[in-house]
Amino acid sequence: MTDPVKFKCASVVGVGLIGSSLARAMREAGLVDDIVGVDRDPDVIARAQKLSVIDRGETDLAKGVKGADLIILSTPVGAIGGVATELGDTADDGALIIDVGSVKGVAVEAASRMPERVCFVPCHPVAGTEQSGPEAGFASLFKDRWCILTPAPREDAAYKAAIDKAAALWSAVGAKVEIMTSEHHDLALAVTSHLPHLIAFTIVGAADDVESVAAGEIVKYSAGGFRDFTRIAASDPVMWRDVFLNNKEAVLEVLGRFSEELAVMQRAIRWDDGKTLEDAFSRVRGLRRAIVEAGQETAAPNFGRDEKAES
Amino acid sequence: MTDPVKFKCASVVGVGLIGSSLARAMREAGLVDDIVGVDRDPDVIARAQKLSVIDRGETDLAKGVKGADLIILSTPVGAIGGVATELGDTADDGALIIDVGSVKGVAVEAASRMPERVCFVPCHPVAGTEQSGPEAGFASLFKDRWCILTPAPREDAAYKAAIDKAAALWSAVGAKVEIMTSEHHDLALAVTSHLPHLIAFTIVGAADDVESVAAGEIVKYSAGGFRDFTRIAASDPVMWRDVFLNNKEAVLEVLGRFSEELAVMQRAIRWDDGKTLEDAFSRVRGLRRAIVEAGQETAAPNFGRDEKAES
Repeated sequence: MTDPVKFKCASVVGVGLIGSSLARAMREAGLVDDIVGVDRDPDVIARAQKLSVIDRGETDLAKGVKGADLIILSTPVGAIGGVATELGDTADDGALIIDVGSVKGVAVEAASRMPERVCFVPCHPVAGTEQSGPEAGFASLFKDRWCILTPAPREDAAYKAAIDKAAALWSAVGAKVEIMTSEHHDLALAVTSHLPHLIAFTIVGAADDVESVAAGEIVKYSAGGFRDFTRIAASDPVMWRDVFLNNKEAVLEVLGRFSEELAVMQRAIRWDDGKTLEDAFSRVRGLRRAIVEAGQETAAPNFGRDEKAES
Repeated sequence: MTDPVKFKCASVVGVGLIGSSLARAMREAGLVDDIVGVDRDPDVIARAQKLSVIDRGETDLAKGVKGADLIILSTPVGAIGGVATELGDTADDGALIIDVGSVKGVAVEAASRMPERVCFVPCHPVAGTEQSGPEAGFASLFKDRWCILTPAPREDAAYKAAIDKAAALWSAVGAKVEIMTSEHHDLALAVTSHLPHLIAFTIVGAADDVESVAAGEIVKYSAGGFRDFTRIAASDPVMWRDVFLNNKEAVLEVLGRFSEELAVMQRAIRWDDGKTLEDAFSRVRGLRRAIVEAGQETAAPNFGRDEKAES
């Protein structure tokens, strides 16, 4: 890992928020000579090319990965298995394959099925925004964020070298790298990412259902807290559908714990139990402080989104 | 309402985030000559005085409202009833009393009990941050936010004039004014503010309970979505305890609808029903767009809290 990591040709399969951000970041860091965008949608390729995110594009996977020594799978999680199977036949010998998906069990399963001549190292950069498409990407997206690697159970030297190379790539674009099992990843991320998204999608949907409160009122009074939930609820529906379908057990487990806790709160409200409420509410302040101190969040009030005038 | 609204002396009872922001905003707009801070905690008074938010301070309510033609109740909701009862005896004749609480049924009840010689107009500025105390306030907090007035059922001319005066005061500090019943307010805000806070407090608390995921991991991977919830979960525990205890029926009603919707999502995940998930997730994007267009939210990705580098 002391040599600077460098690739001749990178194929980005799925040129959306994450794929286009990684392409931009690699280009900016001088990690790659040539970038090919591969997408089923020719319009996405045309837009990415216009933005100079990619040098050329292909709608055909086999053609798009020919000659690539790095293949980045940045499709929704549900497509990873099928694409990996195809790459087992079509990728160049010695190619490093990484994905960027939010569920890792399915990626490790696919990586374990690959022929030894290629190395698929499952990766998850814990970074993103609520926006989608090649226009939404930016080079600094991964800076100071964690990227989790969950390697397949392969013991050969080529695979070990591939893990180091993937780690070096993420470090070179500003991320901090962690290695763990896919099982632990999928539970930890169910807590810190999947459940929050499910709750946000649900509360924003449920608000629509209170007939006597007009949609216009929800918009007007959203600064009371509701608007915070709408950000992650604006995320890509297909990506998130695939996350929940592919991390079912962990999400249902964590959701069960949330529902229990919510029942305790509900009961405390019903029975005027102010002490239970106040104690529970007081307990959570420290966690935000820790997140701010770890550089994962801004300390500015309202996320700094409102202008704060001096007075 | 054509004359500029102006007060000789304003008493701010409870010099926290909202009280100190209104004091600052009124001073900046030239609406008041003299500001008295009233707080049970002498340390809060000393801090507010040092910040020049108030001209002088009192720990005794009766002394602190003597001579005031405007009394602002910015205590937690649970204290409003008791303070109002005391002001019925001690406030100057003709004083305008407003509160700023997040639940209005309890304020209207208190306002209806007041003697006719004073006018209590219940108000709720839908604005705030997750921070507390006089240091957290700022003059522009109410700018472009909605302030809801829920007048008591009084038909006398003095009370009608007091409603106009309260509306003019909020307009003068930049807010947009709406008038409605306390019943409608308490249901609408249960949707847009109280339920979101309850859910945020609960999810942040529940995350602590998954034994096999360390607190350090929750902090590290919080950029996956969790950190968004920690902002409103860092809000003042006593203020929020009082909100839930004083808006029980509406919160339980809205919470019931949320739980139903969540059960539908849970079932869809368990039975691999991707269509139900994708349809539900797709439905909510428009609401965020409407909130951004109404000027109640920033359009910047991640609330603009992350620096977005050009690339």
